[in-house]
Amino acid sequence: MDTFMQSAIEEAKKGLEEGGIPIGSVLVRKGEIISRGHNRRVQHDDPLAHAEIDCIRNAGRIGKYNDTVIYSTLMPCYLCAGAIVQFGIKKVIAGESDTFEGAADFMREHGVEVVDLNIEECKEIMKEFIREKPDIWYEDIGK
Amino acid sequence: MDTFMQSAIEEAKKGLEEGGIPIGSVLVRKGEIISRGHNRRVQHDDPLAHAEIDCIRNAGRIGKYNDTVIYSTLMPCYLCAGAIVQFGIKKVIAGESDTFEGAADFMREHGVEVVDLNIEECKEIMKEFIREKPDIWYEDIGK
Repeated sequence: MDTFMQSAIEEAKKGLEEGGIPIGSVLVRKGEIISRGHNRRVQHDDPLAHAEIDCIRNAGRIGKYNDTVIYSTLMPCYLCAGAIVQFGIKKVIAGESDTFEGAADFMREHGVEVVDLNIEECKEIMKEFIREKPDIWYEDIGK
Repeated sequence: MDTFMQSAIEEAKKGLEEGGIPIGSVLVRKGEIISRGHNRRVQHDDPLAHAEIDCIRNAGRIGKYNDTVIYSTLMPCYLCAGAIVQFGIKKVIAGESDTFEGAADFMREHGVEVVDLNIEECKEIMKEFIREKPDIWYEDIGK
């Protein structure tokens, strides 16, 4: 498997260990990870702390994003897709979009390249979490 | 003027006094302000801390947003519009969209009611800021 996606999965597992929602993300520039993040809604009581938001925040004020690629274990929702479109991140690589459809079409309409790796491990992590803590999951996606 | 928008303008001015980008926001439920926020990119070195994001974060984990209205001194960008669409905030009242077009069409396509109050004071605050600190402004909108 793509080692960057492996790092995103590690982030998702960290989130799970902390009692949070297991979604992880890494931001890559010139073949190197420049930041990592995972969903911290539960840990920080912060409804905006989705994995991709946490990851982009952890990169700091890097200014330009047009040479970055963001990896996420789950297809980005509208919040995270909005950040990706606004900041001009050119490519999104998602672990899966089975457990949550996300906003792939919206990103593509705005010129973002979106790849769905359809990884079984990513689906399993989410399926188990949704089964165990459905309330937290549906809170996270605003449903 | 709408007193809720007046509160959003106060937030924008707080941001300016702190050396930040003067955009303010309040979240209203059942005729009462439940949270306030302003852009804190500069203050917190956080590229995600747009006014609406800061405001929604400050409301905490309120769960449902379908009875809330968000006020912002400036038309929300894709990041903030993405949050509004994802969480199901039903109505956006913007101070202006002259200095920044924002993502009004995107929100309307997703069933959000968008009102632009076209307020001279909101435009003046932004125009002066963009004139004085263009680099910070263009960094904020990812340009």
